[in-house]
Amino acid sequence: ASIILLPGDGIGPEIVAQARLVLENVASQFGHEFGFASHPIGGIAIDEFGDPLPQATIDACKTSDAIMLGAVGGPKWDDPSAKTRPEAGLLKIRKELGLFANLRPIRLFAELVDASPLKREIIEGTDILFLRELTGGIYFGESGRSGSGKDEAAFQSMIYSVGEVERIVRLAAKAAQGRDGRLTSVDKANVLEPSRLWRQTAARVMADEFPDVKYDVVLVDAMAMHLINRPKDFDVVVTGNMFGDILTDAASMLPGSLGMLPSASLGDGGPGLYEPIHGSAPDIAGKGIANPLATILAAAMMLRHSLNLNAEAEAIEAAVQQVLADGLRTADIARGGEATSTEAMGAAVVQRLA
Amino acid sequence: ASIILLPGDGIGPEIVAQARLVLENVASQFGHEFGFASHPIGGIAIDEFGDPLPQATIDACKTSDAIMLGAVGGPKWDDPSAKTRPEAGLLKIRKELGLFANLRPIRLFAELVDASPLKREIIEGTDILFLRELTGGIYFGESGRSGSGKDEAAFQSMIYSVGEVERIVRLAAKAAQGRDGRLTSVDKANVLEPSRLWRQTAARVMADEFPDVKYDVVLVDAMAMHLINRPKDFDVVVTGNMFGDILTDAASMLPGSLGMLPSASLGDGGPGLYEPIHGSAPDIAGKGIANPLATILAAAMMLRHSLNLNAEAEAIEAAVQQVLADGLRTADIARGGEATSTEAMGAAVVQRLA
Ligand SMILES: CC(C)[C@H](C(=O)O)[C@@H](O)C(=O)O
Ligand SMILES: CC(C)[C@H](C(=O)O)[C@@H](O)C(=O)O
Repeated sequence: ASIILLPGDGIGPEIVAQARLVLENVASQFGHEFGFASHPIGGIAIDEFGDPLPQATIDACKTSDAIMLGAVGGPKWDDPSAKTRPEAGLLKIRKELGLFANLRPIRLFAELVDASPLKREIIEGTDILFLRELTGGIYFGESGRSGSGKDEAAFQSMIYSVGEVERIVRLAAKAAQGRDGRLTSVDKANVLEPSRLWRQTAARVMADEFPDVKYDVVLVDAMAMHLINRPKDFDVVVTGNMFGDILTDAASMLPGSLGMLPSASLGDGGPGLYEPIHGSAPDIAGKGIANPLATILAAAMMLRHSLNLNAEAEAIEAAVQQVLADGLRTADIARGGEATSTEAMGAAVVQRLA
Repeated sequence: ASIILLPGDGIGPEIVAQARLVLENVASQFGHEFGFASHPIGGIAIDEFGDPLPQATIDACKTSDAIMLGAVGGPKWDDPSAKTRPEAGLLKIRKELGLFANLRPIRLFAELVDASPLKREIIEGTDILFLRELTGGIYFGESGRSGSGKDEAAFQSMIYSVGEVERIVRLAAKAAQGRDGRLTSVDKANVLEPSRLWRQTAARVMADEFPDVKYDVVLVDAMAMHLINRPKDFDVVVTGNMFGDILTDAASMLPGSLGMLPSASLGDGGPGLYEPIHGSAPDIAGKGIANPLATILAAAMMLRHSLNLNAEAEAIEAAVQQVLADGLRTADIARGGEATSTEAMGAAVVQRLA
């Protein structure tokens, strides 16, 4: 399989290097051949090519089997008046590769439950899979300005089509079938026309095609509340691009260990893109202390979703569980205790894999 | 002063009755004259007039000094195919009265800190004032449908003008001057054109008019995270209609006692509208067990913001503090202990006022 690495900025290169080592180890142990090639994205690509997503990077991704992304962005490229910014590379790669579904599993590692900002009795047992629509909605709607002075106005349109809703709801429902069989769709149908279309379409798909999945609907404001006071009540949650951006980031705080959470962005048949949820953490870049486990867990998602290697994915996940059980902690999850380096943590996972 | 009561549905009438008793008591003690008149809104208005906000209700509100709302909605009016729904009355009254600013103080009552889903060290000391823009943004943007079959699409436009942003940011900055002098503006300027206009306008207003207020900007997804893992870092937070809907509801979970949180919606000179944050709670309606304290605290906000009666507002807030300190709890905050009825709680506040 051919895997494209997009290390990006900040700690990106450090954590992607560890995920690569883990993947190489899996390949040799299970007898696969993985080819790796690195390409620029984000700030580093702006510096080199004046473009956060150079065409050569897109081309390489399109012919690959799967993509591993580190993180993009940093203070160097934060100037709001800049012609382009690292995040533009992210939005563009999603659109170019048709990555319409962002999967974010929010689960708790028993060893880290005390790191949660929530009380143990609220958070314990939480295991949610979010599916965020990633190539539609207000993110890619028409936008513009008009008028001047006090009356100058700016607009951007939220838009969803039946086809866009159908494909993400189907993916979410299938995921629910492989989990606890429950799906919650989140919208704002009491205010927004695209949410009404979303709700109608989702209800039809669920009734016609997934009568076995227990389906319900929650308004986005109510969902923001439920996530905080009864997160363990949810199984699979599906929602649009903007609501998903907010809710998945809120949800990523619940376990208290952002450095442990992976994410996958999938399209229709083409390569998937895998990354940690956390950002480029410029403040600790180059120090060798970043937590590589989210990226390593993203590599497991890659094996499962893009390469159809389930046993291999589970082996990585078990190895990560084991290093935690063995007491290894990078600084972000050490809570004042002894901290393991990025490299040592990667090596420990490789060692547990053997 | 002339005060319009809009009890609405569910527990609305029960809690508004207690707030009225408290206001009457304040009037007699401090030598004011408050006139009260009740009008229908929400489900009950649909039942009686086929309209969740009858013109007579609007007219009465427009000529009043302040409005006290209970809550609207309930399963009886939840049919998605219904011609109109209770919430339409809410959206309409905001627009009709030009209530462009929704103020939601999120504060912790020391006696109730253990009710929070968050750990004590995370939540203790939290005291945030949210200002949500309430008559603009995607809530009131152009909407429609086009196409058919798989290509049927629905859109709704988020739109903000310079003038709309200026007035809410000014109000928020003034509020910050009366508090800890810090203001955070929340947007999604890395994706949305209206957010870019919001950010530019807010920055200009703050630099030109409020150099004394410490000002910063946070993306909405990051804010959803911060609210959960460092809520005590914020003073005043200002944001648009949709982001405010989600973030203020998330924030309302933090204290763990939704039944204690009031809200005010203010316009430019006209009457303000005051209400509890919680809903109509149809499951406990008519049982006499609802918590009237949020509505009573909304009455205090009314005295402060619409009637300019600061000492009176503080007297109510002190009385509420006192009933809590005395150990009185309605069922929602009793945590298994002895529960006080709605009427007894109202009476206790009145008694502490004396
Ligand atoms: C960087 C930004 C454009 C992006 C988004 O809003 O989608 C990020 O927040 C994310 O969730 O991946
Ligand atoms: C009922 C609904 C239309 C309303 C809103 O979204 O504004 C409610 O959620 C609120 O926050 O007051």
